[in-house]
Amino acid sequence: MIHGKNYIGSALSAEGTVTFQTFSPVDLQQLPEHFVQATETETEEAVAKAAKAYESYKKVSGKQRAVFLRAIAEEIEALGAELIERACTESGLPEGRITGERGRTVNQLRLFATVLEDGTWVEASIDPALPERKPLPRPDIRKMLCPVGPVAVFTASNFPLAFSTAGGDTASALAAGNPVVVKVHPYHAGTNELVAGAIIKAAEKTGMPDGVFSSLNAIDFMIGQKVVLHPSIKSVAFTGSFNGGKALYDLAQKREEPIPVFSEMGSVNPVVILPEKIKENGESLAATIAGSINLGAGQFCTNPGVLIALKSEETDAFKTALVEQVRALAPQAMLHENIFKNYEQKMGDIFKGKVVEKLSESDIEASALKGRPAVAKIGGVDFVANPHLVEEIFGPFSILIECADETELMDVLKNFEGQLTGSVLGIGNDFAKFKSHIQVLQEVVGRLIFNGVPTGVEVCYSMHHGGPYPATTDGRFTSVGVDAIKRFVRPVSFQDAPDDYLPDELKNANPLNIWRRIDGELSKETI
Amino acid sequence: MIHGKNYIGSALSAEGTVTFQTFSPVDLQQLPEHFVQATETETEEAVAKAAKAYESYKKVSGKQRAVFLRAIAEEIEALGAELIERACTESGLPEGRITGERGRTVNQLRLFATVLEDGTWVEASIDPALPERKPLPRPDIRKMLCPVGPVAVFTASNFPLAFSTAGGDTASALAAGNPVVVKVHPYHAGTNELVAGAIIKAAEKTGMPDGVFSSLNAIDFMIGQKVVLHPSIKSVAFTGSFNGGKALYDLAQKREEPIPVFSEMGSVNPVVILPEKIKENGESLAATIAGSINLGAGQFCTNPGVLIALKSEETDAFKTALVEQVRALAPQAMLHENIFKNYEQKMGDIFKGKVVEKLSESDIEASALKGRPAVAKIGGVDFVANPHLVEEIFGPFSILIECADETELMDVLKNFEGQLTGSVLGIGNDFAKFKSHIQVLQEVVGRLIFNGVPTGVEVCYSMHHGGPYPATTDGRFTSVGVDAIKRFVRPVSFQDAPDDYLPDELKNANPLNIWRRIDGELSKETI
Repeated sequence: MIHGKNYIGSALSAEGTVTFQTFSPVDLQQLPEHFVQATETETEEAVAKAAKAYESYKKVSGKQRAVFLRAIAEEIEALGAELIERACTESGLPEGRITGERGRTVNQLRLFATVLEDGTWVEASIDPALPERKPLPRPDIRKMLCPVGPVAVFTASNFPLAFSTAGGDTASALAAGNPVVVKVHPYHAGTNELVAGAIIKAAEKTGMPDGVFSSLNAIDFMIGQKVVLHPSIKSVAFTGSFNGGKALYDLAQKREEPIPVFSEMGSVNPVVILPEKIKENGESLAATIAGSINLGAGQFCTNPGVLIALKSEETDAFKTALVEQVRALAPQAMLHENIFKNYEQKMGDIFKGKVVEKLSESDIEASALKGRPAVAKIGGVDFVANPHLVEEIFGPFSILIECADETELMDVLKNFEGQLTGSVLGIGNDFAKFKSHIQVLQEVVGRLIFNGVPTGVEVCYSMHHGGPYPATTDGRFTSVGVDAIKRFVRPVSFQDAPDDYLPDELKNANPLNIWRRIDGELSKETI
Repeated sequence: MIHGKNYIGSALSAEGTVTFQTFSPVDLQQLPEHFVQATETETEEAVAKAAKAYESYKKVSGKQRAVFLRAIAEEIEALGAELIERACTESGLPEGRITGERGRTVNQLRLFATVLEDGTWVEASIDPALPERKPLPRPDIRKMLCPVGPVAVFTASNFPLAFSTAGGDTASALAAGNPVVVKVHPYHAGTNELVAGAIIKAAEKTGMPDGVFSSLNAIDFMIGQKVVLHPSIKSVAFTGSFNGGKALYDLAQKREEPIPVFSEMGSVNPVVILPEKIKENGESLAATIAGSINLGAGQFCTNPGVLIALKSEETDAFKTALVEQVRALAPQAMLHENIFKNYEQKMGDIFKGKVVEKLSESDIEASALKGRPAVAKIGGVDFVANPHLVEEIFGPFSILIECADETELMDVLKNFEGQLTGSVLGIGNDFAKFKSHIQVLQEVVGRLIFNGVPTGVEVCYSMHHGGPYPATTDGRFTSVGVDAIKRFVRPVSFQDAPDDYLPDELKNANPLNIWRRIDGELSKETI
């Protein structure tokens, strides 16, 4: 049963007077439960509990934190059908997608647990003392990554599970040893509440300190703002729009102590289709791309918002096929009325200037809140003159940039801002011939994809989901994959520390049997 | 011969009308040479050349970059006595110190070269494809650290060599594959010019692209400002005052594309002297600490600006010894008249409120610009009530915080802002007994030192020279040691990339024989 209250650590609290309901994009109805927005006092309490919990949670071993993460995964699974139904209802996403997203969420928690059990991720480094060195002896210096303190997590609209209450941000902050305060997304507050309950249960079962996790309902911006401005909050993670992410970033820079804000703000994810590839089978390519455009109603930060090709007969054939494919795409329910309206409005705006030409849109009748898939085109020269025209339109929309020749293609590529991904589709000599073009694209992306669409972000060791600004506020860090944990740590050096003061990771005997850099060489040796 | 011009890449240029001279704190005289401040056009040209050079420099292999760094070291050494003399004259620092600093500078360049030759530093990570995986196959994903683009380096007043033109910032930016634009410090422009010439020679000899290094003379803030605001600059490194470092940070956040600013802004570096230690031999301890306070006229970011002890008879004895030791310290020339005046003024200000009591100062007569060593004290309760009173005073000054008991000591430690270092001096049971106190100190420092003074920052693998704000603007990165290179890179993932497109670090055959993380396990295996 949904209770609509805030989790201030393990305590349920609903002191406020502002309430809100979530909305079903499928039934076009408000859901019955009332969520009570956190008050300023409750917000303060949640952060204070997090700060207090940090004092003990930071000392909890990696192996114990792994037990906690695994317990969260189990408790989420134990929610069973109730969670799946609630998430489907609040997001309008189909059951298959939500079940998959739950799988991604629990696998992610378990992958982080594996990383903690292994222990090597802390980048332990030891330079033993050189007492005989001249002119001065060298002290013993050791270093490892340590937690930073309470982290604020803003849940995303488009992934009610995998980028929400127990998503990648929470998993990595908890894995690193930091308490988490979640700002609930008002579109799926019920889903968030169920997951928050699972986290609290897991924390209690595994003996984690009260306050290691809190969850605050919020319909106004003020709650998130208060959390970010609280001096005990040491880092912020956000996934969503550019406006939201940048506002949080700017807010955090104005604090007396500025703190890192990891905002993942999406991008247009250019897909370059090279000449031999487009010649090979433009029709099948068009089908693949159309499918990627409409996947999840285009509500992915990795949606292929821009296609780029050289003008040619084959490109014309591809275009014709794409036009047909898009006509046949079935519009799908968008996440929320606001998102649908925003899509409709941006779709209207982009054609106003007459520089962008509509190629086709879905012919299939769309009931309310269903995002109508569409494709458009713009010439390379026009894009170079107006690169800001081609900004992300959150929904099933893509724009083809047609380039007259290879020089124009180069100009186009040089005019992109930071992107989460860039894709190149090619066969035969394509990649060799266009190597310098691809290298220009590489410069502005976090992930360079060959012969694949940008949707589908693997949770693994080598994933980098974080391109240069404005795709994110900090392109040096990823929000997907195990290295996401690195966002919430800082190195600490210990000089001539007694062995029994040192964390296990740095002790002479290497009791955790982890890889360490000793005098610059990786090794599992003792000191 | 000093020419006073700017290096716009390898071209000497002096188009401006604003000139300045450097000053000898030893002779109290302006030096004869006139340095021509860079114009806006020259600044623009330097950054444009850097952006152009980046296109090829980023493709230069690590091994070739190592050759470049080693050549810089050789060219600096080849400057011989001229460099040492100029640096001594412009800084007032003694020859032994400057010779040592040159050693540190060239060793640092060579250490970075070793790291590049080894190649493992790029954190190569490979998750091979799993084509049979259900429900979806996994693509091949590989990741490594890549350069970010041109870096602006602001040289420091207190290290004319090791934190200046070819110091740690330049060495790490060049090592990472980024061109550098240096903003010359007006206190030692001649020293900077000599070193800039050495870098240009080394770049030419080793075939590096023109523009990989530029150096701009500046007496006004405007030049540095223009560099930081230039869209082609992707990162900034600074060592100096809080006001300077924070201003650059704020400036960079206001850009259309905000960029990282690594400002190392110093700290008070608290030294906690535990009871058994102070009992053991307060007198010898006082001598060591007095020496550290006056080292380099206290002009180190790691100067022990705060001492902390519990009230006791033994602490009184230590205090008496310290008072005597400080009386006997010989005042030394400070770096510049402005630094001297600032020291004098802050020393005056701190005693105005009458909360801080002067204990003693040097009895030895001090000629002009010599910083008079001094020590003061404040009670623990007074410090907790006025923690901002105890800010860094750049010079040979330290303040003792006397705590009534262990609880007050805990309160004191909880009231520190971010610090580069924190030291604890103890013997016997001290560390065990005060473990929770030390852990509180650990939370706010970049480096935790046991039984050592904070001065002396080893250039090695495990050094972390970068505490939480306000010690630096980004406590997640170090400005000393090989990991300083990590400031100027970002990860890039490659998905299903053809082997011949991949950088050598990620190719199947592992041609560089580096350590790579394969499916999460470190290995030198091929794929």
